[in-house]
Amino acid sequence: MSGLKGFTVPRTPEGRSSLVPYPPWHYVGTFLVVDYWADPEKAVSFLPEGLDPHPDPGRCALVVADWQSCSEGGGELVDPSRSQYKEFFIVVNALLDGEEVTTCAYIWVDRDFALTRGWVQGFPKKLGSIWVTRSFGLGGPADPGMEPGARFGATCAAYERRMAQTTVTLQRPSQGGPFHNAPPIVNVRHFPRLAAGRHDDPAVHELVRARSRDRAISEIWEGSATLDFFGAPHEEHDALAPVKVGKGYRFTFAYTVDDLETVKDLR
Amino acid sequence: MSGLKGFTVPRTPEGRSSLVPYPPWHYVGTFLVVDYWADPEKAVSFLPEGLDPHPDPGRCALVVADWQSCSEGGGELVDPSRSQYKEFFIVVNALLDGEEVTTCAYIWVDRDFALTRGWVQGFPKKLGSIWVTRSFGLGGPADPGMEPGARFGATCAAYERRMAQTTVTLQRPSQGGPFHNAPPIVNVRHFPRLAAGRHDDPAVHELVRARSRDRAISEIWEGSATLDFFGAPHEEHDALAPVKVGKGYRFTFAYTVDDLETVKDLR
Amino acid sequence: MSGLKGFTVPRTPEGRSSLVPYPPWHYVGTFLVVDYWADPEKAVSFLPEGLDPHPDPGRCALVVADWQSCSEGGGELVDPSRSQYKEFFIVVNALLDGEEVTTCAYIWVDRDFALTRGWVQGFPKKLGSIWVTRSFGLGGPADPGMEPGARFGATCAAYERRMAQTTVTLQRPSQGGPFHNAPPIVNVRHFPRLAAGRHDDPAVHELVRARSRDRAISEIWEGSATLDFFGAPHEEHDALAPVKVGKGYRFTFAYTVDDLETVKDLR
Amino acid sequence: MSGLKGFTVPRTPEGRSSLVPYPPWHYVGTFLVVDYWADPEKAVSFLPEGLDPHPDPGRCALVVADWQSCSEGGGELVDPSRSQYKEFFIVVNALLDGEEVTTCAYIWVDRDFALTRGWVQGFPKKLGSIWVTRSFGLGGPADPGMEPGARFGATCAAYERRMAQTTVTLQRPSQGGPFHNAPPIVNVRHFPRLAAGRHDDPAVHELVRARSRDRAISEIWEGSATLDFFGAPHEEHDALAPVKVGKGYRFTFAYTVDDLETVKDLR
Repeated sequence: MSGLKGFTVPRTPEGRSSLVPYPPWHYVGTFLVVDYWADPEKAVSFLPEGLDPHPDPGRCALVVADWQSCSEGGGELVDPSRSQYKEFFIVVNALLDGEEVTTCAYIWVDRDFALTRGWVQGFPKKLGSIWVTRSFGLGGPADPGMEPGARFGATCAAYERRMAQTTVTLQRPSQGGPFHNAPPIVNVRHFPRLAAGRHDDPAVHELVRARSRDRAISEIWEGSATLDFFGAPHEEHDALAPVKVGKGYRFTFAYTVDDLETVKDLR
Repeated sequence: MSGLKGFTVPRTPEGRSSLVPYPPWHYVGTFLVVDYWADPEKAVSFLPEGLDPHPDPGRCALVVADWQSCSEGGGELVDPSRSQYKEFFIVVNALLDGEEVTTCAYIWVDRDFALTRGWVQGFPKKLGSIWVTRSFGLGGPADPGMEPGARFGATCAAYERRMAQTTVTLQRPSQGGPFHNAPPIVNVRHFPRLAAGRHDDPAVHELVRARSRDRAISEIWEGSATLDFFGAPHEEHDALAPVKVGKGYRFTFAYTVDDLETVKDLR
Repeated sequence: MSGLKGFTVPRTPEGRSSLVPYPPWHYVGTFLVVDYWADPEKAVSFLPEGLDPHPDPGRCALVVADWQSCSEGGGELVDPSRSQYKEFFIVVNALLDGEEVTTCAYIWVDRDFALTRGWVQGFPKKLGSIWVTRSFGLGGPADPGMEPGARFGATCAAYERRMAQTTVTLQRPSQGGPFHNAPPIVNVRHFPRLAAGRHDDPAVHELVRARSRDRAISEIWEGSATLDFFGAPHEEHDALAPVKVGKGYRFTFAYTVDDLETVKDLR
Repeated sequence: MSGLKGFTVPRTPEGRSSLVPYPPWHYVGTFLVVDYWADPEKAVSFLPEGLDPHPDPGRCALVVADWQSCSEGGGELVDPSRSQYKEFFIVVNALLDGEEVTTCAYIWVDRDFALTRGWVQGFPKKLGSIWVTRSFGLGGPADPGMEPGARFGATCAAYERRMAQTTVTLQRPSQGGPFHNAPPIVNVRHFPRLAAGRHDDPAVHELVRARSRDRAISEIWEGSATLDFFGAPHEEHDALAPVKVGKGYRFTFAYTVDDLETVKDLR
């Protein structure tokens, strides 16, 4: 390494410019999760090499997260365009050497630092525009609250089209929380080569398993849910559209990430 | 009126298209407020006709609001790009016929429906990009919480420049809450004419006083604050830059608006 | 008027802050226009009071403009976020006292100054995100050029949904240019009241006829076109969807606006 | 590789979803370029390992490009949010084994596909908001034209702050064109590891030299220029601020990219 510093580009003399600061990364956010099932054959077709179909092969979850994050010291928190972002993603259930896992098939995020931080972790992020209903703890007609009947919605758009939308109507505190995104997440880190003749010979192509620490979670509420995906010429997420929708959930979650396990080099 | 319907344009056969739906409008949001003082002479120079200088003439407040709002029925809440927005504004204290009031000298907002809804109420809104630190009630390094030492920041940018930034560090629950933006707000509704020779003869130019109902407020926390304004060739808000900064506050607030009082026609 | 200055809000001591500077406003832009016909009954239902149906009552045009504009002196041109914007709009043909006119039923624009400048002229603008293919005059696979077979597309999105899309494939220089948006444009300036009981009694509600000067136009090319509208719960533009699509056109146009004729007070 | 397809993530069954389509990539765009000199010591401090200081060590250029691009077949051109983007970047002059080259020290771009496509080529892209004056070939007060005295400006903002701005005033057709960004460009492809203990042991860290073909260029105009950089806590580009500004240039350029040469593995 030269005198330039930084976890990611741009790498610079002082190292203050990196699009993603060095780990650890601390996160807190509110979540909407919908347990659902896609067409089993299609769900399986999204599994990367190294993962096997789940015994319940169409099992998927939609996750919408409204995040605030920071690196060590937390300086981004008071310059919040550098700490807040939203993401909207789909996980498919699978097996890794017989163990239940999930893998992220599709994910949109609304900020560049989060897009890049996701790539480093194997999340196949694209930019999108994501909105999600909030609860304010005060009540009144504009505040759904956290109570039976409270309704939450989320939408995701990208490249000038709505990609998907979901609603969750709370019914009760949940005993078990969301089920379809509970297993550990295993993704593929991928970085291509541009050299002529090597466009299908990526420089990085490896199965990785997320590691995190200092996890905290609020009470979870559950209820009924709706979920709609909309197709586009340049997207295939609608192949993962629900054939059956399970429960929806809302909660707040926090954790810290500064590690990742490489399961297998796929090159 | 023709068969076209709608509170604002576009007015259409079914009336579903109005940029701003008919009142009532229900709001809930989190607030950062900073009591401060601008140069007295400059603050007074921002008062519209019909208002007199306050005995403490430099008294101003910076208000940052992170809103969720809806019209009757609340349909926008589950399509949240139509209900959420942030705004960043400056009020100057004044007298109206001897009564203490405030007036909004400058305000940026990040959504079109809120911009237009503001114009209708006399808020001189421009579009901007506004960010404000959030509390999630869960704790951890990315969640400032509501406790002594918790730090919140907000930034406002417009036309590719940062216009202003503020921080508030909580110290204790507040007895009285923010002081400088407590009086009722009186603004100028203004809609110009384009006919040649009448560019300074507006079609609407009237002093109006805000009316609201069903107000609710959370516990208020207070603490120390910082506040910086940055100039631009096409802005003058930096004339209202602080010469002294008072306390900062954070709280959650809700109300409903469906009325407005015209105080005086200024044409 | 007080000591505050400015054509629109915010009105300030120096008058440098107005969201829209004083006229004149100088414009130059590239245009895609599609002559088309909507369902006649539906098209007529969008006509404001004061206009009569056109003898060919479904006659409409879709117009996409990629603008650069400035006020006198042109200072915005070198701070181009203050001078550039795109808009996407639908005009319906009508008669005013027996004379052929058009009226703008729907329009999206991507900048606040242009939204407000439109309101002042009677254009019922909302914010949207608009994209349109450009020609660069250099050639190569990424440059459609201005020649037979050159393809141009435009899309419009608002509130996280695609509202409409169009394509134009050039065939030849046009003799007459677009036909459906050729008549003068007559709009409704509208500014509502918020006072209780007066929500349907606007402060401004008048039929206005555009005036402009110093018009210039490039050679016009014409060809075939496609046009699709997509519905949304909060929009009705799809009632103006094409039942027949005519020719498409591309050209560059410039003019200056500093006047407006009030045809009739509609209150 | 599994059955999933795509040059970049997300890799999917049909391969239609890749954030960046497979090469070749065809580009056309208008350029503003400013030849300038930074503080020599600081400029040299931005050189990556593998490059030596240029004999004129402070030699830099600012480049603003307003691009339209597509992959083979050009489908993106009529869905232009997938083909258009703007970028704003700084190159520093250097030597590679004694040969004159440039290297990109800083670059902002306004679309996700372009950000990722840049990373693959070794450009250290971040997202920003970029605006640049256009010429329309029609004349009038809003069209600078391509003629003596025509003024062009560009601005770049990121994370709610203006990062830099430039103006170019045309004087005459240029004989030689821009000088400081003429040498071939050599960048560092970099993709980090997140595994604990390996945060400074990137998976990809290699010096690469750009390759392109089918280059075309318009007539070049040159003139005087201004250039200002603005600092931020999380940026260091202002260390490359000009100590002397040379000529500015405007022209249109096109090329195709589908290859890259790895000069040296830097790990």
